[in-house]
Amino acid sequence: MRVLFAAPDALWPAWAPVLTRLAPEMDLVRDADADPAGIDAIILAPGGPVGDLSPFVNARLVQSLWAGVERIVTNPTLTQPLARMVDPGLARGMAEYCAGWTLRAHLGMDAYAQDGVWRNDLTPSLAGARQVTILGMGELGRSVAAMLGGIGFRIAGFSASGRAVPGVEVVDPADLGRALSGAEILINLLPDTDRTRGLLDAGRLALLPGGAWLINPGRGTVLDDDALLAALDRGRLGHAVLDVFRTEPLPPGHPFWTHPRITVTPHVAAETRVETAAPVAVENLRRAMAGRPVLHLVDRQKGY
Amino acid sequence: MRVLFAAPDALWPAWAPVLTRLAPEMDLVRDADADPAGIDAIILAPGGPVGDLSPFVNARLVQSLWAGVERIVTNPTLTQPLARMVDPGLARGMAEYCAGWTLRAHLGMDAYAQDGVWRNDLTPSLAGARQVTILGMGELGRSVAAMLGGIGFRIAGFSASGRAVPGVEVVDPADLGRALSGAEILINLLPDTDRTRGLLDAGRLALLPGGAWLINPGRGTVLDDDALLAALDRGRLGHAVLDVFRTEPLPPGHPFWTHPRITVTPHVAAETRVETAAPVAVENLRRAMAGRPVLHLVDRQKGY
Repeated sequence: MRVLFAAPDALWPAWAPVLTRLAPEMDLVRDADADPAGIDAIILAPGGPVGDLSPFVNARLVQSLWAGVERIVTNPTLTQPLARMVDPGLARGMAEYCAGWTLRAHLGMDAYAQDGVWRNDLTPSLAGARQVTILGMGELGRSVAAMLGGIGFRIAGFSASGRAVPGVEVVDPADLGRALSGAEILINLLPDTDRTRGLLDAGRLALLPGGAWLINPGRGTVLDDDALLAALDRGRLGHAVLDVFRTEPLPPGHPFWTHPRITVTPHVAAETRVETAAPVAVENLRRAMAGRPVLHLVDRQKGY
Repeated sequence: MRVLFAAPDALWPAWAPVLTRLAPEMDLVRDADADPAGIDAIILAPGGPVGDLSPFVNARLVQSLWAGVERIVTNPTLTQPLARMVDPGLARGMAEYCAGWTLRAHLGMDAYAQDGVWRNDLTPSLAGARQVTILGMGELGRSVAAMLGGIGFRIAGFSASGRAVPGVEVVDPADLGRALSGAEILINLLPDTDRTRGLLDAGRLALLPGGAWLINPGRGTVLDDDALLAALDRGRLGHAVLDVFRTEPLPPGHPFWTHPRITVTPHVAAETRVETAAPVAVENLRRAMAGRPVLHLVDRQKGY
């Protein structure tokens, strides 16, 4: 099979050796213009050499390198089947990021100023009494819920489909308000779709209990930036940890960088990891070549 | 049974109502001088009204409120059986504290300066590859090992007794050097005894891999303060999170407060919690009254 690696040049050195080692039968090429009709499948990441997908008339699969596909699914030239990346390493990394920041919130770590004053009345409370609400109960949400539940937090999960998850109180869209009103720590893992854009607006942020933490490693578009700043400034919210933004990299002058109750992390919560993601891509390419059902096919109506 | 509550006055309002609710048969008194021979048992915390334990000739048990008993076991007037507090809430709190700081180290959270510069090459590495060495495999060590193992860290545990712990590579004193040389994150939970005092000296700190983190919620006497400062200043160690100190509260002018690679927390890693510890104390007092074996009896030779 001839596979076009249509991703930014910087990714080639990390991915190409692993992909060709895992799939010696694969002819991995980088030249998008050579013979589009001869390409059997495309490995795609936004920002690469391919904008127009229409010449690839024989491509049986477009395999995204990333979990978020909002910049691919909205490409009007896409007619081929599109698969998201579901990387077990990414799901682990996301769980670690969320567990680390949730414990930082729970333990009140930021209360220990290094100012020579011994304030040992600030004893952290026990876990278990602490509710974490997770928006989005897909692969990532379930991975995060499993780790946080194991640590001892009480988990509520919001799922558009309402599907059951062991150990998690799952609420559907009709009960979103209730899930937010109990969320001492709110973690957003929703994808960027027409239905999620701007979901965390002023009205919904006002439902959170006083002092709540927001952790957003999902998508920046889900959050109304101005509403967040207002809620923090009014003292309603305790702190926000933001990993994703409407514009990335977050511009140097953006108020998020300097707000005393916002922590910016640079889209590192969970990155696709070559060592765990490459086998998933190879498996999917082989499935497409063999005419078998591919994994993690994107539903274009839902957008993910 | 008449029980003397021999602890600092500030503790009475929290403990007395819970103890008397759990054990209505108990006559809980605070006056140490009234009739020492009429006291059946003593609930003790350092800093309270009782220094000389010899008048309590009929006391069948001294129940410590705290896990650490180094200030009681060294009291030459102690002739009664002494029990440590083993509080399940404390063990949970200790695990949460250690998990929170270990994830903070693992995720490199402190690398994300809020300075407007987007540095997303600092991707955290996967857990599982990361070794955490825990010094002390008693109740606390096993609780911490279980939580960190559940998150995905590889755990090595140092135990004076060498007893096996599921999921943990346990090393005995002969192999302490090997346990330290693999410790990307070192957690000290050893008690303060003749054998542990000064254990983490310059030579042993030098065995840690470059950039290692030290987390010390155990006892301050286990660590050589000057050796730690030297190891941090030479760039050998990455960071130290210290919750316990040779002098507590840590004096305002102590260099630990202002060292850029030391975080001081004010002995909050794990406090005895009335709601989970009081039932343990009551159970032990009833055992002593009934002549049954008491729990968590201190071995005076070992000191814990």
